[in-house]
Amino acid sequence: MKLLRVGAPGDERPAVRTDDGRLLDLSSVASDIDGAFLAGDGVDRARAAVAAGGLPELDAEGLRVGAPVARPGKVVCVGLNYQDHAAETGAPIPPRPVVFMKDPGTVVGPYDEVLIPRGSVKTDWEVELAVVIGRRARYLDGPDAARAVIAGYAVSHDVSEREFQLEYSPQWDLGKSCETFNPLGPWLVTADEAGDPQNLGLHLSVNGVKRQDGHTSDMIFPVYDIVSYLSQYMVLEPGDVINTGTPAGVALGLPGTPFLRAGDTVELSVDGFGSQRQTFGQA
Amino acid sequence: MKLLRVGAPGDERPAVRTDDGRLLDLSSVASDIDGAFLAGDGVDRARAAVAAGGLPELDAEGLRVGAPVARPGKVVCVGLNYQDHAAETGAPIPPRPVVFMKDPGTVVGPYDEVLIPRGSVKTDWEVELAVVIGRRARYLDGPDAARAVIAGYAVSHDVSEREFQLEYSPQWDLGKSCETFNPLGPWLVTADEAGDPQNLGLHLSVNGVKRQDGHTSDMIFPVYDIVSYLSQYMVLEPGDVINTGTPAGVALGLPGTPFLRAGDTVELSVDGFGSQRQTFGQA
Repeated sequence: MKLLRVGAPGDERPAVRTDDGRLLDLSSVASDIDGAFLAGDGVDRARAAVAAGGLPELDAEGLRVGAPVARPGKVVCVGLNYQDHAAETGAPIPPRPVVFMKDPGTVVGPYDEVLIPRGSVKTDWEVELAVVIGRRARYLDGPDAARAVIAGYAVSHDVSEREFQLEYSPQWDLGKSCETFNPLGPWLVTADEAGDPQNLGLHLSVNGVKRQDGHTSDMIFPVYDIVSYLSQYMVLEPGDVINTGTPAGVALGLPGTPFLRAGDTVELSVDGFGSQRQTFGQA
Repeated sequence: MKLLRVGAPGDERPAVRTDDGRLLDLSSVASDIDGAFLAGDGVDRARAAVAAGGLPELDAEGLRVGAPVARPGKVVCVGLNYQDHAAETGAPIPPRPVVFMKDPGTVVGPYDEVLIPRGSVKTDWEVELAVVIGRRARYLDGPDAARAVIAGYAVSHDVSEREFQLEYSPQWDLGKSCETFNPLGPWLVTADEAGDPQNLGLHLSVNGVKRQDGHTSDMIFPVYDIVSYLSQYMVLEPGDVINTGTPAGVALGLPGTPFLRAGDTVELSVDGFGSQRQTFGQA
C-alpha cells in the first residue's frame, strides 16, 4: 500500500494511492499518518477500508503532497554507506555505520521548494532510501528482527551544505539541518509491498543532467543491519525516519561540478517508490 | 517563574513552583508545557493565574517530576564550549561552535533512572545549562536578537557514552542518544527571572564526590551567541532545547576516574535553577 498526506503544510490529510493511480481520502480512518497511526493498527485499518470500498476519491489536480509521515521524532542518517560514495569523497570504508542526525523539522514534501541557506555556496544533493519505523525498537536481536519494526520506505532527499557540514567543525549535523533540507515522499510504501530493500535503483538529476545512478545492493551496511545496529544505541520509535546513505555522484565528489543555486531543479527517484522534484529558492 | 511538569511519564500535568516552594496546578490554564504553550501566551496566562490566586495546590510528596518541556522537536548540543573542558579532552579551542544533536526521545525527568547502555564501559556525566526556545528563530540579527526567542533555562544532564561517541565513528550523536540520556529540569526558569546566563555556577558530584564545579562565564561561545549562530543554519522552534556545553571534570578528561556503573548516583545543579539526582541502572 502507498500512504501519503495531501494538503497545505500543517493541514495535510491522509490518503492512499491505489495501483491505478487514484487518491482515496483516509480522513474517515485516521486523522493523520504519524507515529501513533503506525504504532497502532493504522495500516491494517487503511487496508481494510480500501478493500471495503467507499472511500471518497480526491482530485489530485493541484493538490500539494506533503511528507508521508507527520512530525518524525527524529531523523537518523547513515553516512558513507555506499562503496562508490565513500570512494568519491576520499573517505575509507567505515568499519561501523557513521551515524548522525538531521533536525526533524527539515522534513518537507517531495515537490516543495528547497531553500539555499543564506551564505551557502556548497548546497549539495543526495538521493537516499528512507526507512520509516513502525514499532518501538530497542536492542533488537539482529537484522532478522529488524524487518518487524519497519513500517515502510520512502524516497528521501538528504540535502547537505558541505561548507557547514565539513569545514565549520568535525560534526556534520549543522550542514544537514538547514530549513527544508529533507524532502520526503511522495509515498510511504508499506514494507509488505516494498520487496527486497537491497534491490532498488536510486536516481537523481540536476537541471536534467543525470548525476546519481546507484543501487541499494552497493550499500556497505544493508537496511536490516542498520536498523538492528541503531537499536543497540538508541530507541527507535514509530514515525522515526532513517536515511540510509547516498550513492556516488554528489557535487562534493566530482570536482568542477557546480553546487546548487536558486533556480536549479532536482529530480530524484527510487525504483517503484515514486519520484520527487524540487526547484531551489533562496532563503 | 518556575514551570514544571509533574506526574507519571507521558501523563504529566503542568505546574508552577512558587517562591515559597509550593506547587500550583496549572491544568486549568494549559494542557501541557510544550512548544505550543511557549509559542502562544502560555507563560503570560500562567503568570496571570498565579497572580489572581485560586490555583489548587499540589501535594509534592511522592509526585514524580518530569522534564519541564514536553516533546522537544530537537535537542541541539554545543560541544567543547568551556575552555577548561576543551583543554582536558585534548581538543583545541574551536573557532566556531561544535554542533551536534541528541535524539529528543532521550529527554527524561530530573530524578528518573538513567540506564547504562548494554555493552557500555564508558558512560560519562556532563552538567550543562539548557536553553529552551520560546519563539521561532531563523537568521537572527545577532546575539541581541537572541534574548527575545529564549523562553527560559533549565539544568540539563548531557549523559554521554564515550566509546560510542568517539571510537565508533567521527560523529558523536550515537554516544549521545542512548535511552534516558538527557535528564532535564526540575524547572524551566523563565528568562525574565533567570538573570544573566553567563553568571551561573554549575556543579556535579558522583556518589558524593565533587567532579564538576564550573561557571558559565567560562563559555567560549556565550548563550546569546550560540542561539544567534544556530539560527543562521537551522530553524529554532518553540520547545527546542539547546545544551550549551559542559565545564571540566568529566571522566573522559581525568584518566583513572571510573566511568559510571549501575548503582552510581549523580547529583547536579545550576545555581538558582534547582538540582537533579539520578541513580543509574542497567539497560
